[in-house]
Amino acid sequence: MTNDSSRQTLTPTADAAALRELAGQLRADSIRCSTSAGSGHPSSSMSAADLLAVLVTRHLRYDWDDPHSAANDHLIFSKGHASPLLYSVYKAVGVVEDEELMTTYRRHGHRLQGHPTPILPWVDVATGSLGQGLPYGVGVAWAASRLDHSDAHVWVLCGDSELAEGSIWEAFDRASSAGIADITAIVDVNRLGQRGATAHGWDLEGYRRKAEAFGWEAVVIDGHDVEQVDKALARARESDRPFAILAKTVKGKGFSEIEDSPSWHGKPLPAEMAERALAELGASGDIRVRGPLPEPSEVRQVAAGGAVVQLPRWDQGEKVATRRAYGDALAALGADPRVVALDAEVSNSTYAELFAKQYPDRFFEAFIAEQQLVAAAVGVAVRGYAPFASTFAAFFARASDFIRMTGISGTSIRLVGSHAGVEIGPDGPSQMALEDIASLRAIHGSTVLYPADATSTAALAAVMVELAGVSYLRITRGAYPVLYPHGESFEVGGSKTLISSGQDQVTLIGAGVTVYEALAAAQVLADEEGIAARVIDLYSVKPVDAATLVRAASETGRIVVAEDHYPEGGLASAVLESLAAHDAPAAVRSLAVRSLPGSGEPHETLDAAGISATHIVAAARALVHG
Amino acid sequence: MTNDSSRQTLTPTADAAALRELAGQLRADSIRCSTSAGSGHPSSSMSAADLLAVLVTRHLRYDWDDPHSAANDHLIFSKGHASPLLYSVYKAVGVVEDEELMTTYRRHGHRLQGHPTPILPWVDVATGSLGQGLPYGVGVAWAASRLDHSDAHVWVLCGDSELAEGSIWEAFDRASSAGIADITAIVDVNRLGQRGATAHGWDLEGYRRKAEAFGWEAVVIDGHDVEQVDKALARARESDRPFAILAKTVKGKGFSEIEDSPSWHGKPLPAEMAERALAELGASGDIRVRGPLPEPSEVRQVAAGGAVVQLPRWDQGEKVATRRAYGDALAALGADPRVVALDAEVSNSTYAELFAKQYPDRFFEAFIAEQQLVAAAVGVAVRGYAPFASTFAAFFARASDFIRMTGISGTSIRLVGSHAGVEIGPDGPSQMALEDIASLRAIHGSTVLYPADATSTAALAAVMVELAGVSYLRITRGAYPVLYPHGESFEVGGSKTLISSGQDQVTLIGAGVTVYEALAAAQVLADEEGIAARVIDLYSVKPVDAATLVRAASETGRIVVAEDHYPEGGLASAVLESLAAHDAPAAVRSLAVRSLPGSGEPHETLDAAGISATHIVAAARALVHG
Repeated sequence: MTNDSSRQTLTPTADAAALRELAGQLRADSIRCSTSAGSGHPSSSMSAADLLAVLVTRHLRYDWDDPHSAANDHLIFSKGHASPLLYSVYKAVGVVEDEELMTTYRRHGHRLQGHPTPILPWVDVATGSLGQGLPYGVGVAWAASRLDHSDAHVWVLCGDSELAEGSIWEAFDRASSAGIADITAIVDVNRLGQRGATAHGWDLEGYRRKAEAFGWEAVVIDGHDVEQVDKALARARESDRPFAILAKTVKGKGFSEIEDSPSWHGKPLPAEMAERALAELGASGDIRVRGPLPEPSEVRQVAAGGAVVQLPRWDQGEKVATRRAYGDALAALGADPRVVALDAEVSNSTYAELFAKQYPDRFFEAFIAEQQLVAAAVGVAVRGYAPFASTFAAFFARASDFIRMTGISGTSIRLVGSHAGVEIGPDGPSQMALEDIASLRAIHGSTVLYPADATSTAALAAVMVELAGVSYLRITRGAYPVLYPHGESFEVGGSKTLISSGQDQVTLIGAGVTVYEALAAAQVLADEEGIAARVIDLYSVKPVDAATLVRAASETGRIVVAEDHYPEGGLASAVLESLAAHDAPAAVRSLAVRSLPGSGEPHETLDAAGISATHIVAAARALVHG
Repeated sequence: MTNDSSRQTLTPTADAAALRELAGQLRADSIRCSTSAGSGHPSSSMSAADLLAVLVTRHLRYDWDDPHSAANDHLIFSKGHASPLLYSVYKAVGVVEDEELMTTYRRHGHRLQGHPTPILPWVDVATGSLGQGLPYGVGVAWAASRLDHSDAHVWVLCGDSELAEGSIWEAFDRASSAGIADITAIVDVNRLGQRGATAHGWDLEGYRRKAEAFGWEAVVIDGHDVEQVDKALARARESDRPFAILAKTVKGKGFSEIEDSPSWHGKPLPAEMAERALAELGASGDIRVRGPLPEPSEVRQVAAGGAVVQLPRWDQGEKVATRRAYGDALAALGADPRVVALDAEVSNSTYAELFAKQYPDRFFEAFIAEQQLVAAAVGVAVRGYAPFASTFAAFFARASDFIRMTGISGTSIRLVGSHAGVEIGPDGPSQMALEDIASLRAIHGSTVLYPADATSTAALAAVMVELAGVSYLRITRGAYPVLYPHGESFEVGGSKTLISSGQDQVTLIGAGVTVYEALAAAQVLADEEGIAARVIDLYSVKPVDAATLVRAASETGRIVVAEDHYPEGGLASAVLESLAAHDAPAAVRSLAVRSLPGSGEPHETLDAAGISATHIVAAARALVHG
């Protein structure tokens, strides 16, 4: 090895000295780019530089010219704040130029973001919220091995701090219990978090005991000894179990002034310190890496191609729960080989079991671990499938941060939340989703659908297969009459006007169960008050049907919105936001769940919440006579 | 022991036969109440009946006549669906009558809810979302031992299914690493979840390895052998480590027709089966329990009494980050002995470290485990303290389900989210909270505050000490000029009108960082367009200052709302909801973060998001001239 400036290319046969030199370059570049940006996490990058140098040169099978090849391994930085290291790797493999690294990192309008996102073609998932990369990796590995029968291996770089996140242990638990072997957690145990030592410091053996207790094979190594790293990575791919490399490392390794110091988390080195660091590292800065390519393999290419889906059919008036309709529709959609279902141990309530019985190979059981449920869906989507993940709507709150990050990733996943609202009755408030519309509407790029009947549920489930981003289908426990004929069309951003006339004095808007309450209210208003009420089924909550709302505002001037949700951020907010955006004034009354609900029969809980037909009638009457 | 119908009272000296008889009664009552209700989870109750019979008769030190005594042990049903068992215990100890159990369980308007909530004085926290009881218990145990120096022990009944939840492992991790000894997890390993076997079935030794790897003392027992149960419970209290009792049990134990059947989850027995079950159980139904009372102890009674809090003082115009102001205020509020601070390993960013340095005994470090962070805050509140839990605003999404359940519990906790919005700049979207206002507004009984400057931040933090329910303070990374003089008053539900005149043509509404953008915009509008703009600092987002909004609508007719948040469910929604509720029409423009943000300097990210002064000016101009 020489230290001159002529370009040097490392291949998988690189020796230890060359790997160490590459690690030095990764450290130097991590320092250089973060100093140039004036922010970033060089010290957290430096601790993992040896791990990455060996991985990308000798073990990561990746065609950098074809990042979307299904044969590629996956490299996920669960510790997303080590982006300087990741981007320095990208430079080393030749897909990012030094100039881009030095002039655009963390700058406005550029792709080398502070934490990695899939705006870069080599990034599968956005990270930066700790504890997420490993659960995503479990989903990717499950899809790669079980759906694609691929040899692709998933390598996840984790920090030690993030092992405090429960989501990491959901991933450990599920990877082993599902028999997923093609995943390796490389844990950079540098013992220091943001504000000081972690709870476990360098207790590498403690981490090993935990990983082993969770069914993983695990080794403890010196993360700066490239030969130990190499041996561990080789063993990781061979293992028939998920594999944890617990690497003892030093934060800031390579620059003595900051090594193992708790004071240098997330801080770029000032220019003069950076100079001293570069001198101490002595990196040539011009090493290129040509790591191994994936082995030629027959990776199944999933495609929509010609699947004939026959959606289930119901008679109008027949009483069907939308959750049951979802299950039937999902099973029908299974004819499309892209469709994958996931559930969190409630598939007999969400009726995802109907899919699981028909397509067991394309069903992922997350057990009661909603973060892993959503993360697995994301991983499945990364491999090109169309995942539907279901649980009780209330319990998606468990995975809010994963859903938020998925909005940032731009990954297309479908979430289906059953047992929404007070409508569930006797189980009480812990099982009642009453804030999910607010949460899901506020996800970047999301779609929120809330059908009332079986026909619309099935139709919208089918529409969701092609939807980009996070889409959410809110469904109901109880059985209600089918409103729409088979074949009726339902669009994202649409609505259905169920009752209208030229004389409407008020518009009643519902979605899901409150559509039935609105219909009943309109009947009472017509029969007993002589008030003509328009009724709109606003099944698309985001985007919302602005044209229909504006027309209703203009033609009736009065609107009552009833929703089985808390008053903030739900259906009424969607209506008000849309009317405001279109300068369509109307007198709007919002009926929503304002007091804490309790157990009871559905008709009692709906009425107690003030969202039953009785309350809609009263609100409409007051508006009209008002 | 006789089986006649005369009332029999068990005391801590009860023998095994008596304990078994009590367990039979608990099973019988679990069946009876759920059958009478027509819903509920008898089989999940029956598996744990022996565990509870021994616990309440011989180990739970609890004065049932004084449920709020600080000397009492705590009994938390993490498997909240076993409410029939809990309520049958309440009957056995004499605080619930058989009639209440049989005629009100799961009925509308009554307190014996489908899943337990603190509407009952013996319930500390609402459960029913699995995986939550143990993390709450860790908080209770920490507060009991560290703050109150009490001998109170925390007993948490867990299901085996819920061990799949990561939050359980956050609790295991933190209990041991924090040296909390006074907590016991009694795990009812009946091997069956809702839809079949759990991932680990009866692998009791596997659970033991996990618990031990996480630093707990653990024993495996036959959960139906009252002598083994007794021995384990005795050892649990003695242990100087957190203790896990891994009890092998049979779902539906005691009624042979449903024992170990996957088909009887969450189903009441039909009347004729219930009759057969009661015959097989042969319970007298009339056993009373007088368990041990807490030992007389000098539990510190925390009280507000006479704390003199001197809030920090800043000069107007001085540039101070609200997160820094929060830290200073929190340290000042520490003079009140009720105030406790918790943080998730970012206390040097949230400045909670200023409190931690001054009051280390009242500071809980959750490490990067936001579910445990919020759960510990709840536990601390259960013991009578006023917890402030802080982390990056974005990461409270990790704990959404805990926050949701806290809204149901009605427990008073204070959440402080720093680094809100695109204002943070270079770190990029993973660290930017842009959906937190929507989520937090939609929590039952919540308060949402978003101050712009240091003075208002400190004042509102002080107000939060006395607030009931979940309150949320959203704070900002960067430093901005102090707007308000020391001593200015800030109320929940208030706002500040910073600029106004009799000629205002438009109202500009901001909160947090956008207040400064609105002020700058007003200046431009006045100087360059001759447009008089009112500027409102809407620091109280929920509840919102309706009177001021209505006046602004009426007097200016035009409103521009700018918020560092996604467009759905945030500040603009709060304004629109309030205006609608008060029939106050206005032309409203909502400026919010509509495209996915990236890294950049704060002025760039604010401008790119369309929420900077430039965009406010343009929106106001268009409204006035449009």
